[in-house]
Amino acid sequence: MFGVDIGGTNTVMGLVQQNGHVVSAKSIPTKANKPAEDLISRIKIAYDAMYAPLKENYTVAGIGIGAPNANFYSGEVVDPPNLNWPTTPLQKMVHHVFNKQVTITNDANASALGELYFGAAKGMKNFISITLGTGLGSGIVVDGKLVYGHNGFAGELGHIMVEPNGRQCNCGKKGCLETYVSATGIVRTIKESEKSALEKSALSKIKPQDLTSKSIYNCAIKGDKLALEAFEFTANLLGRALANVGLITAPQAIIIAGGLAEAEKLLFPLVKERMEQVLLSNFKNEIEILASGIPAKNGAVLGAAALAWDTYNK
Amino acid sequence: MFGVDIGGTNTVMGLVQQNGHVVSAKSIPTKANKPAEDLISRIKIAYDAMYAPLKENYTVAGIGIGAPNANFYSGEVVDPPNLNWPTTPLQKMVHHVFNKQVTITNDANASALGELYFGAAKGMKNFISITLGTGLGSGIVVDGKLVYGHNGFAGELGHIMVEPNGRQCNCGKKGCLETYVSATGIVRTIKESEKSALEKSALSKIKPQDLTSKSIYNCAIKGDKLALEAFEFTANLLGRALANVGLITAPQAIIIAGGLAEAEKLLFPLVKERMEQVLLSNFKNEIEILASGIPAKNGAVLGAAALAWDTYNK
Repeated sequence: MFGVDIGGTNTVMGLVQQNGHVVSAKSIPTKANKPAEDLISRIKIAYDAMYAPLKENYTVAGIGIGAPNANFYSGEVVDPPNLNWPTTPLQKMVHHVFNKQVTITNDANASALGELYFGAAKGMKNFISITLGTGLGSGIVVDGKLVYGHNGFAGELGHIMVEPNGRQCNCGKKGCLETYVSATGIVRTIKESEKSALEKSALSKIKPQDLTSKSIYNCAIKGDKLALEAFEFTANLLGRALANVGLITAPQAIIIAGGLAEAEKLLFPLVKERMEQVLLSNFKNEIEILASGIPAKNGAVLGAAALAWDTYNK
Repeated sequence: MFGVDIGGTNTVMGLVQQNGHVVSAKSIPTKANKPAEDLISRIKIAYDAMYAPLKENYTVAGIGIGAPNANFYSGEVVDPPNLNWPTTPLQKMVHHVFNKQVTITNDANASALGELYFGAAKGMKNFISITLGTGLGSGIVVDGKLVYGHNGFAGELGHIMVEPNGRQCNCGKKGCLETYVSATGIVRTIKESEKSALEKSALSKIKPQDLTSKSIYNCAIKGDKLALEAFEFTANLLGRALANVGLITAPQAIIIAGGLAEAEKLLFPLVKERMEQVLLSNFKNEIEILASGIPAKNGAVLGAAALAWDTYNK
């Protein structure tokens, strides 16, 4: 399968076998200010170059695309954030150029399928995958199938409201989970901390523009109080949100990927503890917290390829 | 089908045709302090009496049972609240007595299937049904199928935590949605209101033990300030919770039943308004709030019968 992930800056793509082996991969700039046609024609050029030496041994059955606000049902990307495109019939346009089966969804849903086909959720029927990066992306699998819902946009855990009149979110709302719980959210937590607390922290030596979730983690594991408190605050909100969504879909596991998941050793036990506190007794010790089983390097491509396999298998 | 709903006080049952027509129905006391065997043998006696005059024209293909903490997968009722039973293999025991296909789940899940087969959700693929009674029960349907999840207990919207260290819930946790949003929750809201506000309200003329969601509604529609505020407070919490769960499963509709749903004219527009405020832009005006399409009188029996039909149809 040919997997493509369209991001605001780069578009990554790869040819992926049914076992998850990435035979060939490539990254090109998205050039988000140019129209979709421009990107699609450059994807085709890259594909042709990748596929040429493989032609004799492989056939490509279909294409899976992860893209912002991509609607699985309609095949459109709807008013996509980070891309200067209007609502665009991406599926149809790519099909026209490639003449192959094309399936699209958002990157978080594709990631969930990546975990199901190639990662930590292999063989699971009910799980949730979340990605803690710039935002909080999530995909929900129920009874072995990705949940798209009535409008095709299900699984938006990042935008559940956790704090009325809380932090401003890029989506226009206030208090969304992802404004607190994400790689950028924890940086905001440090930046919004009291001046006196920040002055006592090793984090005060890092320029605000250089502050990352990684630098906060590095301070936290050395025992820095402010950094530890930021992780506790983050884990508290995430654990509570996961308990709440866990009570809704009763997953076997919650799989966490993305930049902030690198703080696994510190973050996961705190999240698990908080989640268990909030669960009903018949849910206790039923939901595992697991790290992604997909190498970050190929995560987006494998997710998009899994989407194509998922369509092909039906 | 034979539908049975086991409650803490009464057990209702009925013979239901595929079109939802209740051919015969009966209610017996549950006698929650006696063992399960006692109830099952009395259900059998009632069934035999109901079925005897119908024998020539009808066959009963299976039995659906709604019961507290009933696990669809294991067939057990697990440490059931309101019944003085240990964890009990109800499905097996009923099958042994009736020698018919038996399916069990909790009453809220059975209600959701009732709406799907016979009520407001006919033809829908993705919806949520909630019952606002003593507690808040819910059942989630995704892609035409009831969500049981990994442990068989999915759909516990009533126990998502909406207020850390909030009201004590019967489940042992604090701040569960159902302690605020249910027929008893709104009564608690009035009882916890400030004395000075209560004194100015017509509700102060009702004895605390006689206060019901219905009396609060009756005062609210006459313009009583405190009663109206209680509805606004309830609708605020419910609207926010429905937006959050709506972002997870993207339902076409949320169907509301139960005692508090009698306040539909006041409650539903307030809930809808709050829910829309909290939804992402691509979810706005996508989720309907609907009243149950099942007559309250037969709701429990129709839900249980729908469960039996759902198993039969697979």
